[in-house]
Amino acid sequence: MTLNELAEAIGAEVVGGRGDTAIDSVATLEEAREGQVSFLSNARYARLLETTKASAVIVARNARGGPVPLLKTADPYYAFRQAMVKLHGFRRHPHQGIHPAAHVDPTATVGEGTVIYPGVYVGPRAKIGRDCVLYPNVVVYDDCVLGDRVTLHANCSIGHDGFGYATHKLPGEEVRHHKIPQAGNAVIEDDVELGAGCAVDRATLGSTVIGRGTKFSNLVAIGHGTRVGRHGLFVAMVGLAGSIKVGDYVTLAGQVGMAGHLEIGDRVTVGAQSGVMNDAPAGTTLVGTPAMPAGQARRVYTVFQQLPELLDRIRKLEQRVEELGGKKEG
Amino acid sequence: MTLNELAEAIGAEVVGGRGDTAIDSVATLEEAREGQVSFLSNARYARLLETTKASAVIVARNARGGPVPLLKTADPYYAFRQAMVKLHGFRRHPHQGIHPAAHVDPTATVGEGTVIYPGVYVGPRAKIGRDCVLYPNVVVYDDCVLGDRVTLHANCSIGHDGFGYATHKLPGEEVRHHKIPQAGNAVIEDDVELGAGCAVDRATLGSTVIGRGTKFSNLVAIGHGTRVGRHGLFVAMVGLAGSIKVGDYVTLAGQVGMAGHLEIGDRVTVGAQSGVMNDAPAGTTLVGTPAMPAGQARRVYTVFQQLPELLDRIRKLEQRVEELGGKKEG
Amino acid sequence: MTLNELAEAIGAEVVGGRGDTAIDSVATLEEAREGQVSFLSNARYARLLETTKASAVIVARNARGGPVPLLKTADPYYAFRQAMVKLHGFRRHPHQGIHPAAHVDPTATVGEGTVIYPGVYVGPRAKIGRDCVLYPNVVVYDDCVLGDRVTLHANCSIGHDGFGYATHKLPGEEVRHHKIPQAGNAVIEDDVELGAGCAVDRATLGSTVIGRGTKFSNLVAIGHGTRVGRHGLFVAMVGLAGSIKVGDYVTLAGQVGMAGHLEIGDRVTVGAQSGVMNDAPAGTTLVGTPAMPAGQARRVYTVFQQLPELLDRIRKLEQRVEELGGKKEG
Repeated sequence: MTLNELAEAIGAEVVGGRGDTAIDSVATLEEAREGQVSFLSNARYARLLETTKASAVIVARNARGGPVPLLKTADPYYAFRQAMVKLHGFRRHPHQGIHPAAHVDPTATVGEGTVIYPGVYVGPRAKIGRDCVLYPNVVVYDDCVLGDRVTLHANCSIGHDGFGYATHKLPGEEVRHHKIPQAGNAVIEDDVELGAGCAVDRATLGSTVIGRGTKFSNLVAIGHGTRVGRHGLFVAMVGLAGSIKVGDYVTLAGQVGMAGHLEIGDRVTVGAQSGVMNDAPAGTTLVGTPAMPAGQARRVYTVFQQLPELLDRIRKLEQRVEELGGKKEG
Repeated sequence: MTLNELAEAIGAEVVGGRGDTAIDSVATLEEAREGQVSFLSNARYARLLETTKASAVIVARNARGGPVPLLKTADPYYAFRQAMVKLHGFRRHPHQGIHPAAHVDPTATVGEGTVIYPGVYVGPRAKIGRDCVLYPNVVVYDDCVLGDRVTLHANCSIGHDGFGYATHKLPGEEVRHHKIPQAGNAVIEDDVELGAGCAVDRATLGSTVIGRGTKFSNLVAIGHGTRVGRHGLFVAMVGLAGSIKVGDYVTLAGQVGMAGHLEIGDRVTVGAQSGVMNDAPAGTTLVGTPAMPAGQARRVYTVFQQLPELLDRIRKLEQRVEELGGKKEG
Repeated sequence: MTLNELAEAIGAEVVGGRGDTAIDSVATLEEAREGQVSFLSNARYARLLETTKASAVIVARNARGGPVPLLKTADPYYAFRQAMVKLHGFRRHPHQGIHPAAHVDPTATVGEGTVIYPGVYVGPRAKIGRDCVLYPNVVVYDDCVLGDRVTLHANCSIGHDGFGYATHKLPGEEVRHHKIPQAGNAVIEDDVELGAGCAVDRATLGSTVIGRGTKFSNLVAIGHGTRVGRHGLFVAMVGLAGSIKVGDYVTLAGQVGMAGHLEIGDRVTVGAQSGVMNDAPAGTTLVGTPAMPAGQARRVYTVFQQLPELLDRIRKLEQRVEELGGKKEG
């Protein structure tokens, strides 16, 4: 593929390069060699524009030139993605349909074009849509529903029992946690992709839902009855308790935790390791444990890191005030 | 089932409804329709008593009436559980015994009534009790022991090697972490249920133990040699290091972490995301990182969120004290 | 084995015991009986030297004597490890080579002496070295590479797709997260051991790398393109975002999180639950969220826990200053 062809395919403008340069693949700025296109998506790496061996670099329209030819575009990260699709493409699966080493219950249904890897289990009456990919050892419990184009990476579990127990003492027994039947299911809507080892509870009643287009990284846990909206981005190790309503376009950074029964509005963003304990209105950005509006959190954590100096200032004040009082009274 | 029959089955009193109303299932207050019973277990939803379409609602004895018939009972959450058992029941497994797509070592023993799903692995000399359920892709390592009525959800691992290495430099080598044989096992006592993807290390010596009746949610990790008492409740993503002694009826909220070699008394409760770094006497409630008694933590976190205002007050004090000093001296 | 033979095997000196005492196994100080050797590796348990029933205890050279015979050595924890190897040894696998219930793609290669348990999946063109152990239900995606003597515990996933999406609005569509092909792989170098349920992303381009001799505990997640150095120790539930460069001999305690694109020097140590948001120079110890140098963190968290008292002192100062001002003006 020539640089011109690539530029046209990804909607970019060639600046400072020869359009007939051959491009065969994508590489990072540091590792790229001749014949490769690279990209600048993080300002941290801008200095590498001076030294990269790439034949061209995808950048934003307002990027300043360097010695390397540029591919200027309105959305360089999406253009980079398009270049990846053109030059590398997606995984070719080693088999089609349901692999014989998978176990799909005879009462389950699986849509056309869906690929099910070895070791996958699909329970009774589960419904898997079209063009899904279930990687090895994924488990889908009975009665759960996957939409179309759902991708579940290795070892995900969908629809195991939620954490529901009634703690009660029966006559003549010790206090025990009595299991509540989990009679609902889990529904994973179209175009959802979950990383490795994610766990989505089935609901006690009704459905736990992961909304259309939402993406999880690895080891994300979702409690029973929680309903996650559309087009969310949940980074690794996010843990949501049960019965939460999460809006659309919500971004949760790594290791965020969320208490049960909350309402989280659309376009809420939560910083890494934060603990969300209250409802969040649409559009808010929260940070910290307990999670606060980002502006407050920035100020709080700035002072937090200066706490020893604060204590010193209080001690000095106390000393000075005592002196002043002594003089006063003396 | 009539409302009267249900009331008798769950030990409740019908208030304000016709005893011969037919009830076929349970639903949330919001989603219930005629013929369904609902429940009020969280004060947050009390207003829904006014609008629910349920034919009856299970409530506490002291609940105030609304337009909807009530089922009054001393322990409404347990009564709700009983209604779930009567009207929905527990999962019916699609097969009995050991599924042919599971792998149980010939030297392992499996009790009567136990259901082992496809993809499960049970290692040499492991002992699985009666009436257990091992969901797909659960792994039980060699020599581990499960009591009766143990339920392990998908992708749990029981008895893999603990994190034991001796860091040492041998002559002529770089410093390396030398693996310590993990010669103990893991023991899961009667009536334990673990959520999806939990990981319980085997002990270096002796046993890692999960005590009778304890329940974990998803992705809980237990270090080698830790002994968890009876009837605990560990919410998702709790991580315990090794050699901890945890008492009975201990509740750990989501994402709690605990350092090694601690002693945690009976009936200790720890708030979400807390980091426990010291022994905890029986009956204490801990919150925060580092975990503090709940009362202290509440005060600490209240001031924490006001830190910027605190800094302002210190600045004003400094200014005022300087003025006072100046006047004094002036 | 006699005490003398054991002492010689582990490089220790017998102090206060009979060299011909028979020793058959290792046990903790609390549980040891006659014929067993124990060890003191944590000062917390020193008092047990007085009461242990062990026939000998491995201790440091400078340990004070008790009634029990001692095995004195320069590195007692390594000596304990050696005793474990001599007296207990490592797991004997119930089969050799690739178990028929594993699925290894015909284009993958597996080195001599490697043991692959039931339920393991190894994808197209993956390369597994010699003397590895892949426990049940481990998944190795296409094109990933494992060195020699790599041990992966149950349910690990190596080389699933990293969390890469370009968020973009196409004409006539809603804003969506467009999947970026993950064209790189994951490389696990020699002598790495990963606990149960770990998840190592494949890189978008190039490789995610876990360096030689590094050990993870359970449920550790590593983002795409991150390169972990040699001989690291990552405790359970550590989560690293993508594109991080981690040096050699780095120790991360439980539940540590790390933001993307950081550079972490050699021999960095991070305390439990810390959130690392900045580069860390070699040799530093970090604690807290946000992670701070350990000395600062100790001071900060000490004051943090006294925040309510701090507020009281400020209130008293305000009152006293007002009095002083009043008197002044009065």
